[in-house]
Amino acid sequence: MYKLYEFFASGNCYKLRLLLTQLNIPFQRIEVNILKGESRTPEFLLKNPNGRTPVLEIETGKFLAESNAILFYLSEGTDFLPTDSFEKAQVLQWLFFEQYSHEPYIATSRFWITTGKAEENREALNQKRAGGVAALKVMEQHLTEHQFFVGDRYTIADIALFAYTHVADEGGFDLSKFPAIQAWIKRVQAQPKHISITQQV
Amino acid sequence: MYKLYEFFASGNCYKLRLLLTQLNIPFQRIEVNILKGESRTPEFLLKNPNGRTPVLEIETGKFLAESNAILFYLSEGTDFLPTDSFEKAQVLQWLFFEQYSHEPYIATSRFWITTGKAEENREALNQKRAGGVAALKVMEQHLTEHQFFVGDRYTIADIALFAYTHVADEGGFDLSKFPAIQAWIKRVQAQPKHISITQQV
Repeated sequence: MYKLYEFFASGNCYKLRLLLTQLNIPFQRIEVNILKGESRTPEFLLKNPNGRTPVLEIETGKFLAESNAILFYLSEGTDFLPTDSFEKAQVLQWLFFEQYSHEPYIATSRFWITTGKAEENREALNQKRAGGVAALKVMEQHLTEHQFFVGDRYTIADIALFAYTHVADEGGFDLSKFPAIQAWIKRVQAQPKHISITQQV
Repeated sequence: MYKLYEFFASGNCYKLRLLLTQLNIPFQRIEVNILKGESRTPEFLLKNPNGRTPVLEIETGKFLAESNAILFYLSEGTDFLPTDSFEKAQVLQWLFFEQYSHEPYIATSRFWITTGKAEENREALNQKRAGGVAALKVMEQHLTEHQFFVGDRYTIADIALFAYTHVADEGGFDLSKFPAIQAWIKRVQAQPKHISITQQV
């Protein structure tokens, strides 16, 4: 059985709980408390030398890191990843957009605010506002014309972007200005076997 | 013929010139001077709403953004991307590592220094040192035991990481402390049809 090493509150980790659940794949979750440095212990660094969660243990000693790489691995050959090579590349385009232009702004802001680190990071938090809003604008524009991110159906591109977008308010981002994003959030939440970010699995 | 919209000095764009050349795929390059705001014009935003280079125009009006998504698209079915699903996922793991844990530190430092923006970004530049060194340490550790990043052969994971690593000194990172990275750089440069980052194509 897959083992998922994760920090429960992390959106990056939630992506995998959500996909594994929607794929009906059983897994064992192992909490790694990054607030207590548990992702930087010598033991954990053997699983991921980059010291980050999530990590998927596929079989004993066979580890895969980076949430979006794991999404791709789990979804290949399923309805969650297109087979057409251009559509697959478009999925990857959005996955890289998420990690480069979205997560460092919205997820990091949420992390500081929800873990009581807002004050000590006040200036950096302010600097992250523009980047987060810019990412949401790119999403809003796309979703004004499309139901989902790629091929007008639910894929791992939606899962990756949903994880931190639907809790963007916890990072201080007001989604009421983004009606197309709000409608898409409802469409994602209406997918079969959807679980919330706080749901125990 | 493919059209590559790129900023020549960018490592992200160089990745694609290198792979296209090694794949013997002809392409037309179109310079987009990001220093003059040319990636934020209304015309360019129709190609990539996120306003970044590179963008590959596959056929008229069919655009793909995000350097590492384009690497994946171009390399599928070639020797530059494994067919084994775990090895393919490992390639993606390193591509996401590159965009999240490497490029924002090393490439951004190089950009500020080489475009005369070091002074105005002095504090941010100092803050980027630790992240860049951490990324290089992860690479050094891996390359101490492996010839290349995945499957012990040259893939797009090497191309993605080579682009900014081999010019890390231009961002103020001293590679003399990383002998395994230096040896890997020589192995990458010895690949058939290798071109340098400054070579006109």
